[in-house]
Amino acid sequence: MVLGFYCDLLSQPCRAVYIFLKMNKIPFEVKSVSLLRGDNHNKDFRKVSPIGRLPVIEDGGFILTECVAILKYLAVKYNVPDHWYPRTDLKAQARIDEYMNYQHLNTRTNMAMLFQNLWLLPMMLNRPIDRKKVDRYSNNVGVVIHQIDEYFLKDNRPFIAGDNISLADLLGLCEMMQLYACCQEKFIESNPKVNAWAERVKLKLAPYFDEANVEVNITRDKFMKSAATQPKL
Amino acid sequence: MVLGFYCDLLSQPCRAVYIFLKMNKIPFEVKSVSLLRGDNHNKDFRKVSPIGRLPVIEDGGFILTECVAILKYLAVKYNVPDHWYPRTDLKAQARIDEYMNYQHLNTRTNMAMLFQNLWLLPMMLNRPIDRKKVDRYSNNVGVVIHQIDEYFLKDNRPFIAGDNISLADLLGLCEMMQLYACCQEKFIESNPKVNAWAERVKLKLAPYFDEANVEVNITRDKFMKSAATQPKL
Repeated sequence: MVLGFYCDLLSQPCRAVYIFLKMNKIPFEVKSVSLLRGDNHNKDFRKVSPIGRLPVIEDGGFILTECVAILKYLAVKYNVPDHWYPRTDLKAQARIDEYMNYQHLNTRTNMAMLFQNLWLLPMMLNRPIDRKKVDRYSNNVGVVIHQIDEYFLKDNRPFIAGDNISLADLLGLCEMMQLYACCQEKFIESNPKVNAWAERVKLKLAPYFDEANVEVNITRDKFMKSAATQPKL
Repeated sequence: MVLGFYCDLLSQPCRAVYIFLKMNKIPFEVKSVSLLRGDNHNKDFRKVSPIGRLPVIEDGGFILTECVAILKYLAVKYNVPDHWYPRTDLKAQARIDEYMNYQHLNTRTNMAMLFQNLWLLPMMLNRPIDRKKVDRYSNNVGVVIHQIDEYFLKDNRPFIAGDNISLADLLGLCEMMQLYACCQEKFIESNPKVNAWAERVKLKLAPYFDEANVEVNITRDKFMKSAATQPKL
């Protein structure tokens, strides 16, 4: 039975899993779950995953949630090239695990909240931007970029776990695209080390990175049109 | 060189690593970093970990941050009993990874924020309790307990990954102790399945669980004395 992949490419972790599946030629069947329509709260989806979040995979009856767990499971199960999650290098694994656990409350939370407060909430609820929150999350995003520079890319490592791309870089860049969606890529571009890393990761993920990020570009266009009618950010 | 363990037992993830080290008789040297004194912002500690958070381990010059990454690294490196993180059972690993990634933005965030808003912030900043925030995090804690019941302990599994305790149960219970510290254990006790799980995990972690949680009991006593002089919660 082919791998079932419950996803919506509006979600950053769904995009990470999608790119990983495509790059490693793992056959899968997309089971589309629209977050905007609220399909993830439907009874049918709740039977698959009572938690109601994406992504989810179903592998011969084995249901698995949580992007990081899914990526690691797929890497081992489908025996993908070792650099994604080195099977016998415990220290490289630890570096990847370290970043993938760090990112939840740092990269992911702050970049997603900046996006939500600059664009999603004002647009959906038709209310002005909450500057205090935007300032707080902007400040946090600056701290995250600095920590990635200073710690996760220290010793001028080209990638988080060493010389080649791993699950950590893939997930890292996918979460950072929330900045691009609301024209806040200045946080990346103003840090030469993180910017060069992002470019390296993008190159490694071609052509599936662009394919997965079509919706990000559409959102960015909408944001730019909307921002043109608002006071300068 | 003996394993260096930078910790403060006021921190939940530090308690999880401490219990794990003791239970598995892994020799270590505590390098005390007082969070209340702000030692984690000191220059010396920042040289070890620029991110400035606990726990951190140093294993023969290899520095590792992030509790989940540390627990997994130690389990494999020190070849602890397999049930903690089954080395050849990919699906059991996936269940453990799934919970350990879920907990960051769910168990950990909401229980820590409830504790902070009921006790830490009012006490340290000498300000009244923000009832709106307490209500929000209380509601979220209820959702988390329900999800643990419905998903992570489904099919009446005694532990998150099956028949024996794993890293996921250890970390899960350590984070939940923030409820106990501010007398909110009703969230656990009112759910028979989660309550029975918590009792099973406690038993498995004896006697190190109580040893690691001394500070939690002290905080609870302080909270009770303080709460006696406040309007009923």
